[in-house]
Amino acid sequence: MTERILDRIDAPQDLKGLTLEEAEQVADEVRETIISVITERGGHLASNLGVVELTLALHRVFDSPNDSLVWDTTNQLYTHKLVTGRRDEFQDIRLAGGLSGFGEPMESEHDTLCAGHAGTGLSIALGIAQSAVNRGSEEWTVAVVGDGAMTSGSSFEALNNIVHLNPERMIVILNDNGMSISENIGFLTNWRKRLITHPEFQSMIERMKSISQRVPTGELMYRIVKRFNTGLAGLIVPTMFWTEMGFQYLGPIDGHDLKALEQTLGQAMDSRGAVPLVHVVTHKGHGYELAEEDPVKFHQPSSPLGSGSGAPTYSKVFSETLSEIMREDESVVGISAAMLEGTGLVDVMNEFPERVFDVGIAEQHAVSMAAGMSSNGMKPFVSIYSTFMQRAFDQILHDICLQNLDVTLIADRAGIVGEDGKTHHGAFDITYLRCLPNAIVTAPRDENHLQHLIYTAYKYDGPFAIRIARGEAVGVPRDAELRELPIGKGEVIMEGEDVAIFALGKSNSAAVEAADQLAEYGISCAVVDPVYAKPLDADLIFEVARKAGQIVTVEENVLAGGFGSAVLEVLKDAGLDDVAVHRIGMPDAFIEHGTAADQRQQLRLDAQGIVDQILGTYFPDVAARVQRGEDPRLAATA
Amino acid sequence: MTERILDRIDAPQDLKGLTLEEAEQVADEVRETIISVITERGGHLASNLGVVELTLALHRVFDSPNDSLVWDTTNQLYTHKLVTGRRDEFQDIRLAGGLSGFGEPMESEHDTLCAGHAGTGLSIALGIAQSAVNRGSEEWTVAVVGDGAMTSGSSFEALNNIVHLNPERMIVILNDNGMSISENIGFLTNWRKRLITHPEFQSMIERMKSISQRVPTGELMYRIVKRFNTGLAGLIVPTMFWTEMGFQYLGPIDGHDLKALEQTLGQAMDSRGAVPLVHVVTHKGHGYELAEEDPVKFHQPSSPLGSGSGAPTYSKVFSETLSEIMREDESVVGISAAMLEGTGLVDVMNEFPERVFDVGIAEQHAVSMAAGMSSNGMKPFVSIYSTFMQRAFDQILHDICLQNLDVTLIADRAGIVGEDGKTHHGAFDITYLRCLPNAIVTAPRDENHLQHLIYTAYKYDGPFAIRIARGEAVGVPRDAELRELPIGKGEVIMEGEDVAIFALGKSNSAAVEAADQLAEYGISCAVVDPVYAKPLDADLIFEVARKAGQIVTVEENVLAGGFGSAVLEVLKDAGLDDVAVHRIGMPDAFIEHGTAADQRQQLRLDAQGIVDQILGTYFPDVAARVQRGEDPRLAATA
Repeated sequence: MTERILDRIDAPQDLKGLTLEEAEQVADEVRETIISVITERGGHLASNLGVVELTLALHRVFDSPNDSLVWDTTNQLYTHKLVTGRRDEFQDIRLAGGLSGFGEPMESEHDTLCAGHAGTGLSIALGIAQSAVNRGSEEWTVAVVGDGAMTSGSSFEALNNIVHLNPERMIVILNDNGMSISENIGFLTNWRKRLITHPEFQSMIERMKSISQRVPTGELMYRIVKRFNTGLAGLIVPTMFWTEMGFQYLGPIDGHDLKALEQTLGQAMDSRGAVPLVHVVTHKGHGYELAEEDPVKFHQPSSPLGSGSGAPTYSKVFSETLSEIMREDESVVGISAAMLEGTGLVDVMNEFPERVFDVGIAEQHAVSMAAGMSSNGMKPFVSIYSTFMQRAFDQILHDICLQNLDVTLIADRAGIVGEDGKTHHGAFDITYLRCLPNAIVTAPRDENHLQHLIYTAYKYDGPFAIRIARGEAVGVPRDAELRELPIGKGEVIMEGEDVAIFALGKSNSAAVEAADQLAEYGISCAVVDPVYAKPLDADLIFEVARKAGQIVTVEENVLAGGFGSAVLEVLKDAGLDDVAVHRIGMPDAFIEHGTAADQRQQLRLDAQGIVDQILGTYFPDVAARVQRGEDPRLAATA
Repeated sequence: MTERILDRIDAPQDLKGLTLEEAEQVADEVRETIISVITERGGHLASNLGVVELTLALHRVFDSPNDSLVWDTTNQLYTHKLVTGRRDEFQDIRLAGGLSGFGEPMESEHDTLCAGHAGTGLSIALGIAQSAVNRGSEEWTVAVVGDGAMTSGSSFEALNNIVHLNPERMIVILNDNGMSISENIGFLTNWRKRLITHPEFQSMIERMKSISQRVPTGELMYRIVKRFNTGLAGLIVPTMFWTEMGFQYLGPIDGHDLKALEQTLGQAMDSRGAVPLVHVVTHKGHGYELAEEDPVKFHQPSSPLGSGSGAPTYSKVFSETLSEIMREDESVVGISAAMLEGTGLVDVMNEFPERVFDVGIAEQHAVSMAAGMSSNGMKPFVSIYSTFMQRAFDQILHDICLQNLDVTLIADRAGIVGEDGKTHHGAFDITYLRCLPNAIVTAPRDENHLQHLIYTAYKYDGPFAIRIARGEAVGVPRDAELRELPIGKGEVIMEGEDVAIFALGKSNSAAVEAADQLAEYGISCAVVDPVYAKPLDADLIFEVARKAGQIVTVEENVLAGGFGSAVLEVLKDAGLDDVAVHRIGMPDAFIEHGTAADQRQQLRLDAQGIVDQILGTYFPDVAARVQRGEDPRLAATA
């Protein structure tokens, strides 16, 4: 085995001394490394294989960290990490304590920002570039944005402002892989298809060229034809859009041709006037046959560290239940924001292609469109990851709740998410949803419960949010008939007298497990599923709390303003001052990546964590005996 | 005085029978009515005067409410209200119990949705139109969007999805008045300027036409030239953008020419293929000389119902203080999202034109751009109305707080806003900001306090939010020197022993007034300014709460998850179970329009409301004596 050049690349400047051929060899070595680590470890494989050459070209042409490379979403930084001094740590990417799967300024000065939500890169880059202008600095700012992220509203707002401010030394790179996570939606795709598929396309190009050389023209005519030549030369490109918008369009370039990339980046640096937009065409999964064939599946291979219990995921149960309802009621529709696969809606779309809408990376639009559909007699179910639903907070408030419309929101991946880490936890939705008038906020404790909650949301006429956890459900049997549950009613899962646990959603099964363990210590523990974070089942809470005298709340949401706070509010409003309350939930911090199991353990959200906190708070004698290895029952019954 | 035709218009169908001349007379009558009512009452004058003819044309051509007219933002519905059976109520618009200043389905079946935030209309309209397609209904959906709202990211997401779904019987109207609330930013304006100002413009048009008639062309060439002719014929139009995006472009039309409007709307209905986009050019304030001359000022004349105390507004004090800091530190910059005037940043921009950025109706971008600037050595102050800041919730979380960047957010118009009503109250920011790790959340009790808080934010290195109230400050003198306040420290404003009020921000002066009144009843009342909703000054809260034994929290934010909840959290976590807490704040409901004073009275957030609630909760005997007209001191001292 020959020595790898990659092993000598400890910083970006080491790339600059390489010949083109050597750099191309590095590309191969990087690709091999990524494939071997990520197929084992899990991660964003296809998108990272698509930008190997682009990343190397950027580091060979620009001077990071003096120049800023701003990657939108930052899930495609594996090559970047490998050539910026993190080669040896790469094998532990996404593991607790290892490299983040996203950009991370704390890891390296070469990482501009930590970002995991699409559509923010252009704004951030403009801020950096404009600051350089204001400070009179000569640094470059390069934004790399995927075609999926380019269709998000925040990207458009940034494009608009970039042409307005027109900062020097800023370059935008459109990383066009012809698809976002799901198939790309909208005008970029439409254009491409229209141009490529047109039978007279080639002959028209030739005629255009010939005309442009013959006729006498004014400046404007010249510019139009020039634009068209530039565009048509690439065969696939809506250059007019970018030029008309105010950018200087360069491209399209083969994103796997290192030489062409470097030349074009050099041209972009030399150009004056409008901000250059370099159109780079890449192939997701390039160099990995399996990933190339099915880039959607290989967007993020599932981690081998899953529990593998065989229970269906919550997303799957959602999609099956929704299909069941849609078979009975034509007014029910599904809406996804570029997450057809992740949310399970792809299966619903296969059965009802006219009644499932994937709007692209456009959470705001997804929610407002649902409002419009509801106002015209439909019953929309909008499924968005909890962390991305934050993008639509105002629309949920203003277009759904204020209008009191009949829309169901599925906040998928709510709570702890594991390896994707701090940008992806669904840690805030209980807080930001339960403060909204008219909203119903709920979470299922298992898959059977979920299907009934979905049916309940369907029957309920108003805004209804269901937060569901990432990954596999509990593994309980599902009832054959869907059932409507009473709004605002909790359920006693286990009776008990010494302490009561109110555990919402996924935390409920951990609470049951904790109660079983506490029973072994002689502590009689009630477990309640509040079911609703809003409206709370105040009567049940009062009854159980009065009886136990000391309670615990458990949720996978930040404690500030969450479910536990809601319990404090009703208890205090009712004057039940003498009930002791210990709240368990996510802390006032962003939680780093690792396995979900590790994160739950670290945050003491698993059964053992609940046991420890209950003992520490309410049964210190038992806790002490457990600690000393004695039989804890002696203290508990004392 | 001749009889008005308007007085015979009780529903849209009454407009259909009129001749063109009669309808034009109605336009004049509508305009007179709007001017006479709104110059007295306050409201969105200029924007409403701009759409008089457009509104009449829409109602003459379409069949509301069977056809849906979806107005983006709905602040320009005055004409619509006057011709849909609400003529007699119009004089009480924006008053408590009167017509809303925005769309309101509860008022009329002709109002599709209540909306007050720009950029949601296209999404809602698409939802309505697509529902009609799915149901096989033949109704029309017409969206009217201003050029300002068109630049918001949510509009772009919708445009993208409209061309993808391409629903039948949907029409988009671009209401182009050449400006949003502040001067319009970005590519639409750039285009217009570039075309109009080009010296060779006219001669080029002629040459283009001549070329297009002479050369043999393929379909594509024909289409380019046709597009250009269409565009150039209007002199000012970026038709290519819309056509390339996938719309059928019609226009531009003079928005004050009723006949042309009706003809073009008819054409749009007859067209097949792509969704028609009708470009209507209107003039804000059309027909009202004063408003036409200064449409920014007349966007919304201030209500004559203000207190007129002569104290500066909080926005003004913000802008003066920011200017003062900017004179000393070149790294400080200001960012506004189309609210230069409202936020006071216009004055700062006049002094520092290179250091204030108005990004247009693009709150998401404003916040992410601030993140980029902060990461490159600047200290951005972003001022956005609290209600619009909801649009940037995810960016605040993901781009500012997660990165722990040094950005100051001014949540202007926080709390009760008065006549703009339920779409505009800043009722949620404490909840949605205090749940974010790394965020500092604070509010000033008066203008002197505000200037020191701004300076404190400037000195503090991290995310810092200051919520400020709409309207005039308290009227206290301001210190000559700016002072840095300790982070997380509250202040005792009044000592007292029987009860303690923790009142944040604007509510603090009402609390002091309440305490004075309670003192007359013999009740000794402490008043604390917590200053920070996050981090709470737990030590001070514990000390004062222990001493008084019963406390009240006051805030202009929803109670769910707000400041009062934060107090409950720290008290319970500290085991201070025996402190009685009564929380005063905004209820779990959307608050209708009216004067701010009336709203505060209704919600019992004013001094009298605080007194009543303290008496009712903690001093029922005194309350009873007050009710009976007896001397309340007898009970209090008993």
